[in-house]
Amino acid sequence: MSRVTIAPEEDRLNAQIAFAIEIDKLKRVIRRNHLIDGSRRENSAEHSWYVGTLAMVLGEHAPPGTDLQRVVALLLVHDLVEIDAGDTFIYDPVEVAAQADAEKAAAERIFGLLPGDQGERLRELWEEFEARQTPEARFAKALDRFAPILANHHTEGGTWPLFKVKASQVREKVRIIEEGSPSLGAYALELVELSVARGHLSE
Amino acid sequence: MSRVTIAPEEDRLNAQIAFAIEIDKLKRVIRRNHLIDGSRRENSAEHSWYVGTLAMVLGEHAPPGTDLQRVVALLLVHDLVEIDAGDTFIYDPVEVAAQADAEKAAAERIFGLLPGDQGERLRELWEEFEARQTPEARFAKALDRFAPILANHHTEGGTWPLFKVKASQVREKVRIIEEGSPSLGAYALELVELSVARGHLSE
Ligand SMILES: [Ca+2]
Repeated sequence: MSRVTIAPEEDRLNAQIAFAIEIDKLKRVIRRNHLIDGSRRENSAEHSWYVGTLAMVLGEHAPPGTDLQRVVALLLVHDLVEIDAGDTFIYDPVEVAAQADAEKAAAERIFGLLPGDQGERLRELWEEFEARQTPEARFAKALDRFAPILANHHTEGGTWPLFKVKASQVREKVRIIEEGSPSLGAYALELVELSVARGHLSE
Repeated sequence: MSRVTIAPEEDRLNAQIAFAIEIDKLKRVIRRNHLIDGSRRENSAEHSWYVGTLAMVLGEHAPPGTDLQRVVALLLVHDLVEIDAGDTFIYDPVEVAAQADAEKAAAERIFGLLPGDQGERLRELWEEFEARQTPEARFAKALDRFAPILANHHTEGGTWPLFKVKASQVREKVRIIEEGSPSLGAYALELVELSVARGHLSE
């Protein structure tokens, strides 16, 4: 990036701008799943917008007391490590196992572009999301899992038949949704069973 | 959309899901400006993620007391009306004038998909953003204007030479940034002058 100023008090802004330029790359990380109209695969930036906005729309399905603004923050940063580490297909166990180290290194580099205090704070959001130990992280992860099920259900199975994903595997992911939101979990399970009944997802 | 449940108490969730399915379309609204690597034009969903995340990163450049979580919320919903009304190119006065009615009708329809109270709340966020009467809306709008200037500066002028935009027009947009954040306004002005000096933006 070009450093347009040299005054030391502006180093902080320059670091933030370097980060801003870097994270634009998330728009070029392509996920397995498709848009709901089936027209193309989704990228991780628009996915992050989608689930962040879902947090505002579906927030009443989180346990009482969940800090929804923190859920939004978790979701906006949750995929940034994919800029280096790529998207992980959650139904591929080999991919999932190899991913942890790559994502840790990515977090080091990408959040490291920010001023120290700020990089630390954003990195903590990412770690909180991954750990799923808070109601906020569990609800955020639930939305992250809910969105592809919604899209697949509305695109005749979408990535399920394409990657030979079985109903039992999807039901396992539904459990993660239930942990964050019982009502969204129940809804997701209905979508799964309907998809099975329609022949878009096999047992 | 398919209504997977019929119990009346689940009508609320069904309305929220109908909205969720509808707003996926924002991923197919294509803006004039390009990604920072110049590889393709940006869509309004990934743009909304980008500026929402910038609010978290550049928040300290908002006036003291600005509610940054509200800024994020404003930015996540600010472009939803484009699903019906399309993106407006801010340097085309004819387009800008024609847009207001179309966006109002779009807001009516799209936010109207939600349960009444919730649709009202999200619509108010969009109206607040557009009116720029609060520090939150002014800062949100500043980020919305800042992002394309950053991208154009880093893609040899990007949409500026492409659509014959003049430096004086961009300096006018910089004033909107200044109103939301004096320091980001000053930074944007430096980018503009640098772009002029490099021959990527003409007087
Ligand atoms: Ca716009």
